[in-house]
Amino acid sequence: MAICSVSVIPVGTGTTSVSPYVARCHEVLANVEELKYRLTPMATILEGDLRLILKVIEELHGVPFESGAKRVLTTVIIDDRKDKALTMEGKVESVRRKLGK
Amino acid sequence: MAICSVSVIPVGTGTTSVSPYVARCHEVLANVEELKYRLTPMATILEGDLRLILKVIEELHGVPFESGAKRVLTTVIIDDRKDKALTMEGKVESVRRKLGK
Amino acid sequence: MAICSVSVIPVGTGTTSVSPYVARCHEVLANVEELKYRLTPMATILEGDLRLILKVIEELHGVPFESGAKRVLTTVIIDDRKDKALTMEGKVESVRRKLGK
Amino acid sequence: MAICSVSVIPVGTGTTSVSPYVARCHEVLANVEELKYRLTPMATILEGDLRLILKVIEELHGVPFESGAKRVLTTVIIDDRKDKALTMEGKVESVRRKLGK
Repeated sequence: MAICSVSVIPVGTGTTSVSPYVARCHEVLANVEELKYRLTPMATILEGDLRLILKVIEELHGVPFESGAKRVLTTVIIDDRKDKALTMEGKVESVRRKLGK
Repeated sequence: MAICSVSVIPVGTGTTSVSPYVARCHEVLANVEELKYRLTPMATILEGDLRLILKVIEELHGVPFESGAKRVLTTVIIDDRKDKALTMEGKVESVRRKLGK
Repeated sequence: MAICSVSVIPVGTGTTSVSPYVARCHEVLANVEELKYRLTPMATILEGDLRLILKVIEELHGVPFESGAKRVLTTVIIDDRKDKALTMEGKVESVRRKLGK
Repeated sequence: MAICSVSVIPVGTGTTSVSPYVARCHEVLANVEELKYRLTPMATILEGDLRLILKVIEELHGVPFESGAKRVLTTVIIDDRKDKALTMEGKVESVRRKLGK
């Protein structure tokens, strides 16, 4: 299981708003049962099988094109470890515990 | 006001754990009154004046070196707009509203 | 055709050196005839079909694990446009022309 | 000395072209004598003192706003090591040597 942040940004749309595209990406994600996902103010974070994540990212990257965008920049950061289970919740908890929270 | 994600990763430490470094970075952030910040599973997100954010990022980037790391990779994404106020909460709300949540 | 930068970093290896891993990634790339690639000081840039690029990135991400790394961080930025052909050489030339070089 | 990749992207400009903005950023860089820089197809890479680099990045981030953009996304990756000198040329050479080139 990998954890991955993804941000899909249309370039040259004439509007500074990107939330409609993010919302459409989340509609796609809502139909992918095998992945957990979480919206943050800067990216969406995915948790699950890496191959599936990359397949879904290809789909998310296509979302702005379907809405008429002509150029899309997608930024992906994959965090993957084999020595222990990696979960979104576990990563945050591990930091909180060290902060005594 | 800008919003900025930052991730500080030590390289070559001999341990796959990075949460002790993240926790120390959050201790630094707790002392910066003028910035809002939020921990996510893949990065910490900062909200505030861009110049201050960059000054704080230089400090966060130095945290693993103080703990003995010899190499550090820091990834920063700045989102900044002049046409309306940008807040972490506002960005997330804008997507949720479009999803009817 | 998309252009994509990729950086694959092992975490917790006990050595600050990453060039052996980058070299192994380039041996993988040398066997993928359908992609162009270029080494830069901060990432490797790939040019070609996006689906193939993502397939190859999954493979590159696996390279440090094969060499014993237990955690890997892979950063990918995809630039993709439908309104005109996008090539590594064309992007650089376009800037140089505007600089009068 | 740190090495840093930076990419400055205007959002909502109505044109998919970003090379005019990159060219203006390089005009700024041409006036910063203490930094080395190199254009690549996906980012500009800077080499020099980290504090200066961050100061210059703040300036580069402002370039599209000066040309009328209302939203700008800037992506920065800092690579910094204390155990040996880090240079753009050295990083590339280290990989090439291992590839027998």
